[in-house]
Amino acid sequence: MSAIPSEPRPVRTRSWWGWGHADAHLDDAECTAMGALLPGTLARPLPVPRVADLPIARPAVTPPPSLAHLVTEDPRARAAHAMGKAYRDVIRALRARPGRIPDLVAHPTGDRDVADLLDWAGEHDVAVIPFGGGSSVVGGVEYRGDSHRAVLSLDLTSMDRVLEIDTTGRAARIQAGALGPVLEEQLRPHDLTLRHFPQSFEFSTLGGWLATRAGGHYATGRTHIDDFVQSLRVITPAGAGTSWRLPASGAGPSPDRLFLGSEGALGVITEAWMRLQERPRHKASASVAFTDFHQALDAVRALAQSDLAPANCRLLDAGEALLSGASHDGSSLLVLGFESATGPVGDRLASAVELARAYGGRPETPPAAGDASAAASGSAAASGSVGSPGSATSSGSVGSSGSVGSSGSDGSAVNAWRSAFLRMPYLRDGLARMGAVVETFETAATWDRIPALIDAVRTEVGAAALKITGHPATVNCRLTHVYPDGAAPYFTVAVAGRPGDEVQVWDDIKAVAGEVLHRHRATITHHHAVGRDHRAGYDLQRPEPFALALRAAKDALDPHRILNPGVLLD
Amino acid sequence: MSAIPSEPRPVRTRSWWGWGHADAHLDDAECTAMGALLPGTLARPLPVPRVADLPIARPAVTPPPSLAHLVTEDPRARAAHAMGKAYRDVIRALRARPGRIPDLVAHPTGDRDVADLLDWAGEHDVAVIPFGGGSSVVGGVEYRGDSHRAVLSLDLTSMDRVLEIDTTGRAARIQAGALGPVLEEQLRPHDLTLRHFPQSFEFSTLGGWLATRAGGHYATGRTHIDDFVQSLRVITPAGAGTSWRLPASGAGPSPDRLFLGSEGALGVITEAWMRLQERPRHKASASVAFTDFHQALDAVRALAQSDLAPANCRLLDAGEALLSGASHDGSSLLVLGFESATGPVGDRLASAVELARAYGGRPETPPAAGDASAAASGSAAASGSVGSPGSATSSGSVGSSGSVGSSGSDGSAVNAWRSAFLRMPYLRDGLARMGAVVETFETAATWDRIPALIDAVRTEVGAAALKITGHPATVNCRLTHVYPDGAAPYFTVAVAGRPGDEVQVWDDIKAVAGEVLHRHRATITHHHAVGRDHRAGYDLQRPEPFALALRAAKDALDPHRILNPGVLLD
Repeated sequence: MSAIPSEPRPVRTRSWWGWGHADAHLDDAECTAMGALLPGTLARPLPVPRVADLPIARPAVTPPPSLAHLVTEDPRARAAHAMGKAYRDVIRALRARPGRIPDLVAHPTGDRDVADLLDWAGEHDVAVIPFGGGSSVVGGVEYRGDSHRAVLSLDLTSMDRVLEIDTTGRAARIQAGALGPVLEEQLRPHDLTLRHFPQSFEFSTLGGWLATRAGGHYATGRTHIDDFVQSLRVITPAGAGTSWRLPASGAGPSPDRLFLGSEGALGVITEAWMRLQERPRHKASASVAFTDFHQALDAVRALAQSDLAPANCRLLDAGEALLSGASHDGSSLLVLGFESATGPVGDRLASAVELARAYGGRPETPPAAGDASAAASGSAAASGSVGSPGSATSSGSVGSSGSVGSSGSDGSAVNAWRSAFLRMPYLRDGLARMGAVVETFETAATWDRIPALIDAVRTEVGAAALKITGHPATVNCRLTHVYPDGAAPYFTVAVAGRPGDEVQVWDDIKAVAGEVLHRHRATITHHHAVGRDHRAGYDLQRPEPFALALRAAKDALDPHRILNPGVLLD
Repeated sequence: MSAIPSEPRPVRTRSWWGWGHADAHLDDAECTAMGALLPGTLARPLPVPRVADLPIARPAVTPPPSLAHLVTEDPRARAAHAMGKAYRDVIRALRARPGRIPDLVAHPTGDRDVADLLDWAGEHDVAVIPFGGGSSVVGGVEYRGDSHRAVLSLDLTSMDRVLEIDTTGRAARIQAGALGPVLEEQLRPHDLTLRHFPQSFEFSTLGGWLATRAGGHYATGRTHIDDFVQSLRVITPAGAGTSWRLPASGAGPSPDRLFLGSEGALGVITEAWMRLQERPRHKASASVAFTDFHQALDAVRALAQSDLAPANCRLLDAGEALLSGASHDGSSLLVLGFESATGPVGDRLASAVELARAYGGRPETPPAAGDASAAASGSAAASGSVGSPGSATSSGSVGSSGSVGSSGSDGSAVNAWRSAFLRMPYLRDGLARMGAVVETFETAATWDRIPALIDAVRTEVGAAALKITGHPATVNCRLTHVYPDGAAPYFTVAVAGRPGDEVQVWDDIKAVAGEVLHRHRATITHHHAVGRDHRAGYDLQRPEPFALALRAAKDALDPHRILNPGVLLD
């Protein structure tokens, strides 16, 4: 085992109000061009918001001298920590009506700092909002209401080191504030990788993934971050603790699983031992078009129930395929990728394509080939995930480290999908500036419910959006993760809003979506967490005995009720 | 979906005091022959114990008329529910010094019965011990102390039906009281299987597996029952609840994971939707001998870190291999098995054997072949797991449904291991009748700790046993489950006891074992649960914030503290 020294990283400016890097945002002309694609949007983009226009009051509390060096009241820092990065958050920034802006932002540098800040906050009725990359799309990192004296945003990103690596058992002890590229960069010299690549990879942290049970890179099998956790360190107002590093244990209910998904409401995760993998040396990918979406669903189910274990198995419906530029003929598109550190994967890809063909699929690129270019695509991945300078499209850590091979033989549809996947949140912000309502939501359900669920969401949410806005809406669907017993559909809604009233428009549309999901017994969230936006759906879904236990755990661990109030529980 | 009709099953008599079926017990001559192998044991076996010799008092409570039909005070039923099936339990029965015998045994037939019994027990200070197959080896199903007015054993085995099957998503709603063969028998007509085959398969229930986080059939990958749970129904004194059937969810901490491993202390699991699989059509197995056990460990680690995913990958040390008759030349033995419902597995077996050879392994049987006999071994599995009459060796549901192919080409070492695996607990009881102390314990640790851990247990536990008894002890080890980041070693200890003092002898030996495990940060249990016997180790291992949360959950769900008192918590 060895401690990993800190190294300088290239720095780009993060947007305080929109997704990702400020230099990757659409300019006014690009926004206008985007808006022209959606009937009813504004003629000119809303201006880029300015911190100076925000209602930022003087902090209601002052930290003690012993903590002052950890805390800032800088207006830009406070503005950047006021909300996450949902459409709701972006439009609130654009309209200069943000959520409550925190009084202070703290950057602890270690466990002692976190414990001291929690102690001080508990004594002074200060709400503490744990904050990683700030990429929440469910209102998970903002404060609502006024039942606390002040609000402190607890930014963990100064705690971003890989502290130990166990190369024998392939695991690393990693501080929770490490952003995706920051932790992968430290693992690379050891030829190891966490291989957790959510769309937010560049802008979210290990601690955020753990606290929200993030879904990751793999489209099948173990993909939620939960399964890669060997041990957690958690600091609560009632004390700190670390679970043992174990490959498996049957000793009582899993202690880690109580904190995974606890969204900062039970404690602050400060570090974790994570299970790693060797970097894949063999990759192959292909895409398969389907005329009939329901047949494509059957094909994906058959793949998920086989033991072929594709790393990527994402099904885009016709609208989603069109939007990503991957298909233009009204077909649905299945994007398949295989990878292995052990041996060639061409046979598995060929078997998967053959299986898809049996359900009416039309392979778009010849399978195979990928293995031959293994060395090349391995090094592309190695250079890609550092977050190298350049346009968002070409710097994409997710894409080049992702499951979809980047070699030429992999087919343009696959590449088109990957680029669009990374670019999507920036396009959303461009459309938001045109007064459009553009947002996504995801769910999961068992296969017996999937076809009717997808049909109902498309129909009912589309009708609701039309009724609410008076404009035709786009409702697209893709499957991001598939399981032997079900799938995770991910929906994108785009419609022109009512100028100045966009938040309400989206909340009304989302309420209809939540009702449809509930009626179909589809979870309120597959990997975006509950936050504050999903509370109503979560409360209906959570079994009552577990709700009782969770409330009791909250009382025991956070007796002053300072931790992320309103998330998961009142 | 369809309800599965109840069907008659062949009935054999379960032993009230020892393992499994009474007709499979060793007779006196067999016991004497076994004893002769272990220096210092008795000359003649202890007599088979009789219920009439036990101190069975009149019940301290009488159930109300509305519940009377569910409850028995029959002495044999009470005796059979007094303890589990650890060595400690068997020797206590043989010495007519059992744990406290429950006042009453209840057989609820549905959720309403369970709730009514809990209500009545809460009102009358009656401790309730949930009881499945009664195969606990950690004191999980007995009552210790005298802080309750009376004790009720809640036997769930009358709730043993598969209630619904979803063939599209391959899942079934199964009542928690179904024993392994009983549930597999109901799934077979649908060509589906849960494929959870612990050694106790015939004598343990789904609910028991869930409440103890049982480890199962697969030696690699997903093997703990936890990963096969889609939804749980739990009845607590504070109310009942059912989690939604979902393939995955990110909505808060997993509600099911709090009850998995809760050992009856938080509620009674009455049914679960379980993820099923197609029955495997392709199987292949082989064994590989190693002169150097530490090289064998390296080979197994390499296999676990590959993506070959063997279903069986069990490593027996020299003593374990000798005991099971699988090897006689002092070699360690790696038992490998592959299975698939999708396609042939011969290539994967060949790759695995090749990998083992690189670490000095000597293949004992030619790999391959297994695929050709797929149909035959499939039907052997089909007939095997019903629990057909015959000797324990030939009826073994585990063996014939297990991962090790039963066709002749699979090699005698593999077959020898399987037979011994099933016969082992009966031999233990035979040795117990000879006054021997024979018991097992299991753990798990990360790979970096495994070699030193195994060496330390062998040396220190062996020395302690010699010191405590004055007799030389056998300490054998096998790896039952392996993971990319670690392994689960399973130890067997055999030594002549001190007549009449065997429980204390074992407790003293086990205390040393627990100390060694703790020093090596190896879990107190990988798949046998905590119960009462592992409390000390569990209390040291459990992180304090989780302990606080668990106690709070217990207070909220079981306010009268009637549920399995002393398990997990005081």
